[in-house]
Amino acid sequence: MMLVVGELINASRKPIAAAIEAQDAEAIQKVARDQYDAGADYIDVNAGIFVGKEAEYLEWLVKIVQEVVPAPCCIDSPDPKAIERALAVHQGTAMINSISLEKERFEAMLPMLAGTELKVVALCMSDEGMPETCADRVQIADRLINSLVQKGIPLGNIYVDPLVQPVSTKSTFGVEFLNAIEEIMTKFPGVHTICGLSNISYGLPVRKLLNQNFAVMAIAKGLDSLIINPLDKQMMANLIAAETLAGRDDYCMNYLKAYREKRFEL
Amino acid sequence: MMLVVGELINASRKPIAAAIEAQDAEAIQKVARDQYDAGADYIDVNAGIFVGKEAEYLEWLVKIVQEVVPAPCCIDSPDPKAIERALAVHQGTAMINSISLEKERFEAMLPMLAGTELKVVALCMSDEGMPETCADRVQIADRLINSLVQKGIPLGNIYVDPLVQPVSTKSTFGVEFLNAIEEIMTKFPGVHTICGLSNISYGLPVRKLLNQNFAVMAIAKGLDSLIINPLDKQMMANLIAAETLAGRDDYCMNYLKAYREKRFEL
Repeated sequence: MMLVVGELINASRKPIAAAIEAQDAEAIQKVARDQYDAGADYIDVNAGIFVGKEAEYLEWLVKIVQEVVPAPCCIDSPDPKAIERALAVHQGTAMINSISLEKERFEAMLPMLAGTELKVVALCMSDEGMPETCADRVQIADRLINSLVQKGIPLGNIYVDPLVQPVSTKSTFGVEFLNAIEEIMTKFPGVHTICGLSNISYGLPVRKLLNQNFAVMAIAKGLDSLIINPLDKQMMANLIAAETLAGRDDYCMNYLKAYREKRFEL
Repeated sequence: MMLVVGELINASRKPIAAAIEAQDAEAIQKVARDQYDAGADYIDVNAGIFVGKEAEYLEWLVKIVQEVVPAPCCIDSPDPKAIERALAVHQGTAMINSISLEKERFEAMLPMLAGTELKVVALCMSDEGMPETCADRVQIADRLINSLVQKGIPLGNIYVDPLVQPVSTKSTFGVEFLNAIEEIMTKFPGVHTICGLSNISYGLPVRKLLNQNFAVMAIAKGLDSLIINPLDKQMMANLIAAETLAGRDDYCMNYLKAYREKRFEL
């Protein structure tokens, strides 16, 4: 079934930033527990806004999150030093968010990943900037995957993020992303694809409607992991239904279980 | 944009059967008007349960529906005689639902279509029975499309229905259908694909959740027409969002128009 990364413990959200600054462990732990109970497989932790204190705060977040939920974290930072400090206290196998094809970032991240069992989000971004077309995305993914595999990182630990861009900027941005998902999943059997959703609806009204439908369309194209708010019940219900319809739910067991657990009562 | 066939005027629904028997034109006309106002491009008319009176009732349905809505009908019957009688009173270009590869049906329907501008639903069913896999569906579609085109029916007037089967019967039935949509749309540029949805969720709870998500997934794979209940506001909102995300809505104009018309207020 779909791998869900709960996105809520992110310092770019005001209540989270406040809780981190106040070192209010209980507030953070409640958000961790709620996301885990709602079905998150990984808990994302991000302290990116705190320049100079990011490493210290990331370490603290990992510690207090894992005190209350038996789930790994998705350590969300571009800074290898901050990630290393967080990894030192992490229990189990973390996911790192993210490596990319940008030369500096790639070279800084790679040594930390090589020879480990860490999962890694591989962002389809290069020094030439953001990809626009499906072909751009697949070309970057191809180079990223090959480089990572050559360093001994198993295909199954790589989560390619083809980068969602706003459909309000260009009408084709949605479909170029969706086609990239399908092509990457077909071309590299065993690799995973992952994304956040909120960029797709940037600049448009009723963003939830677009985000939810885009997630379902991406699943139809092969997406198997998502970075989302698992407390959005309609989103989670849609994901369960979409997985069943995509042939990933033998005998509809997961769908029927979710129904019995009243997860469709919105 | 998506072509929507409003499915509600179907005699297998009890209130419709009662209205037909009572020749209650007003009741039927209200359902026609409501569907048209909600965005239906075609109004399906079906009197299939009335053995011996189907032709007479179909003719009546077409007449009274077109008295109140400026839309063509989708004439839903396996009987060429009944269809001919309905066509005699129909204004504009009707859609016929449906021809299939079953020999008897195919040969009876073909002469009525050849040389006309009628739209036709081409059901992926043959004398060997219901298709199960994507390959079965594509093979039947291929033969159907070729036969119709050879008789002078333009590709753009053909709406292939790959036949939805319940995911509760076999976990892969959803994905086999979805892959067939994609393959047919890729292999025959210019042809349309269409389907009803309700079979997908047969035997499962919370059917609307499955039907709505399946429609969105099919759009991601290229589906461009649907036979649905256009009064389902959540379904219609999802379709508008999905079309925008599928790159079929320049500058998001249709999405923004639907927002201004409060079609997303569910």
